[in-house]
Amino acid sequence: MTGLSPSGIITLTTDFGLRDPFVGIMKGRILARFPVARIIDLTHDVSVHAPAEAGFWLERSFVYFPAGTVHVAVVDPGVGTTRDILCAAAHGQYFLAPDNGLLGTLLARATSPAAAPAVVRLQPGALAGFGIGAPSATFHGRDIFAPVAALLASAACEPHQLGRATDTWQPGSVSTATTDSQGVRGCIVTIDHFGNLITNIEGTQLAGFHRPEVLAADRSLPLRRTYGDAAPGELLALVNAFEVLEIACVNGSAAVSLALERGAAVRVRESAG
Amino acid sequence: MTGLSPSGIITLTTDFGLRDPFVGIMKGRILARFPVARIIDLTHDVSVHAPAEAGFWLERSFVYFPAGTVHVAVVDPGVGTTRDILCAAAHGQYFLAPDNGLLGTLLARATSPAAAPAVVRLQPGALAGFGIGAPSATFHGRDIFAPVAALLASAACEPHQLGRATDTWQPGSVSTATTDSQGVRGCIVTIDHFGNLITNIEGTQLAGFHRPEVLAADRSLPLRRTYGDAAPGELLALVNAFEVLEIACVNGSAAVSLALERGAAVRVRESAG
Amino acid sequence: MTGLSPSGIITLTTDFGLRDPFVGIMKGRILARFPVARIIDLTHDVSVHAPAEAGFWLERSFVYFPAGTVHVAVVDPGVGTTRDILCAAAHGQYFLAPDNGLLGTLLARATSPAAAPAVVRLQPGALAGFGIGAPSATFHGRDIFAPVAALLASAACEPHQLGRATDTWQPGSVSTATTDSQGVRGCIVTIDHFGNLITNIEGTQLAGFHRPEVLAADRSLPLRRTYGDAAPGELLALVNAFEVLEIACVNGSAAVSLALERGAAVRVRESAG
Repeated sequence: MTGLSPSGIITLTTDFGLRDPFVGIMKGRILARFPVARIIDLTHDVSVHAPAEAGFWLERSFVYFPAGTVHVAVVDPGVGTTRDILCAAAHGQYFLAPDNGLLGTLLARATSPAAAPAVVRLQPGALAGFGIGAPSATFHGRDIFAPVAALLASAACEPHQLGRATDTWQPGSVSTATTDSQGVRGCIVTIDHFGNLITNIEGTQLAGFHRPEVLAADRSLPLRRTYGDAAPGELLALVNAFEVLEIACVNGSAAVSLALERGAAVRVRESAG
Repeated sequence: MTGLSPSGIITLTTDFGLRDPFVGIMKGRILARFPVARIIDLTHDVSVHAPAEAGFWLERSFVYFPAGTVHVAVVDPGVGTTRDILCAAAHGQYFLAPDNGLLGTLLARATSPAAAPAVVRLQPGALAGFGIGAPSATFHGRDIFAPVAALLASAACEPHQLGRATDTWQPGSVSTATTDSQGVRGCIVTIDHFGNLITNIEGTQLAGFHRPEVLAADRSLPLRRTYGDAAPGELLALVNAFEVLEIACVNGSAAVSLALERGAAVRVRESAG
Repeated sequence: MTGLSPSGIITLTTDFGLRDPFVGIMKGRILARFPVARIIDLTHDVSVHAPAEAGFWLERSFVYFPAGTVHVAVVDPGVGTTRDILCAAAHGQYFLAPDNGLLGTLLARATSPAAAPAVVRLQPGALAGFGIGAPSATFHGRDIFAPVAALLASAACEPHQLGRATDTWQPGSVSTATTDSQGVRGCIVTIDHFGNLITNIEGTQLAGFHRPEVLAADRSLPLRRTYGDAAPGELLALVNAFEVLEIACVNGSAAVSLALERGAAVRVRESAG
């Protein structure tokens, strides 16, 4: 028993894009089992086959949803193979995702006794008991994730009824920024719609610096509070609303200005100046 | 009388894109007449002015929605001209679309006595009786489709009250793959977000082959079960979750690899090897 | 007291795009305070940092929503600086937006005594009284706009409880087309998904012409009723469903054909022919 009371809300995070009806079909399957579900698109434009990016955003986003929300994340290059699907109760919410590292960081951060995650590997026999039959080879979002999300959100079942408990899973694939005597070394996790470069460097990792200097693409950037603290066209770094270091260009795209992509190195050190 | 009981769900399929407020405005019109409508976006990124593509996806998608769902499809290069709008009760669901071939295949496949479609051509006089006045010349999605969908989904009217019954309409514009002694000849109907090439060749058309070989762009591709059955970068064919032949590139884009577009020929034959 | 009765509907207009979870997170915050909110995306692909474009579409769209709808518009290059946020009751609806000109035209057109806008500048102290604390420096959509929208839509408060009444604000940043003896001079406000060029020239400004001729990019275009009134590939002008002049290319993109961008000049004059 997780003791969670479902909020009736289901969020969807995928790399399906919105060009095709894949997301709409998932919603149809959800409504067929749970007609009053409230379904929220978190994003469907995760970089294709990038579970790390999906996991990063999901881990930074779930807290803004009511307790008992069901978060479905389908970034799943292994669909149709033997990879498992995990169903986790953690942080007071439910999570459904392939066991490919997407949930790793999120589960690793749910370690206090009160918040320890309860994780289950979905099993075909258990699913069959709820009328979820053998899936297609290529669209488990429709065939498994959607109906399971509806079951959980409608309180028709608890995770432990859907498979076998487990306490191992793929670790998170977002690397953690490291701190040593030279400063902090991290990387760009994702690039947003505005061209802002979002890193894995936590705001808390900057606490010890007196005059921090951010280094990226051989440039030294000042650390500011918000976009309006620099002039149009200027590059700056800031701790963003998700509590990680971000590099931005005022009224422009830092991704274009610096020609950086996901994975590129970013450092923070004490300014010599 | 169609005998259908509305599910309260309305799906939307358009080529309007999401850059402009057109889709949002349609939803406003729906909620103004039916405040508890549950509205699902099937897709708004159908290739511009491609009713065949919209019809293909709608025909493959509606089955995942509850009986009595209202499916609205507005891919309508003839808006404002004399083309009619069809309202059909078929397959246990409602469909609204311009009479431009979009619904042709879907209606042709609803031919059993139990599932025979009941189709009506909307008429201005009938619509006026429900408070739907003369439309603008360019946005019938807002002025006709949205309020009619709200009427149907809220059980405020039946299709026969909206116009005149008809048993002819534009045939489907998706061609059907043909089978002869050489094998099966079809074409690419649409290309999805992942660059997968989706054809009009039904999985059932492959039943007679012992060792099928898929030919596209002068390449011979193996038929596999799922993406994980080939190595990263490899091209393969499979029968996808919509029961049609699809050509994919593992962790890549088949559309880019093969430089193929919608309409390109795809063949299946018995392998000589 | 505004005397408005909330419809329970909230619309969202932003330049956030749909690649990242920003919009989904706003919806989570709304549902956390108002679980039965019906949230409609008007558009999230306003040109980045273009409040004028957002204001244009919002002013042309709100009328299609029920009275008492809450319209949230976050195109906000000044986030985190001293710019204010406005909450207006006007035209029988609620509007929330930064004071950067976005609402200027919309409010200027609500001037009759019955429709006079009641406008408030949000104040931190007032927000704190409703549990809305100090915001992050970069994401007021999540930290202020979403919870305030939920308060208004759920009738938990009235605008005057959220701040201080004001009767001045930034004027609208969409210029108005002017009429003189030479004809009408306007410009392109936005370009839609189809490549149609949408201008600030009102349909009513064309009333005095006998044989109007539309001039753009050194071309003379005929004024027609709808797209079907010209041949495929031809350019034409029409008064669109939003009552403004639009330049279109039948089955093509006028933006591509004419190589015009936002801001480009468009004129209408009496044809000499």
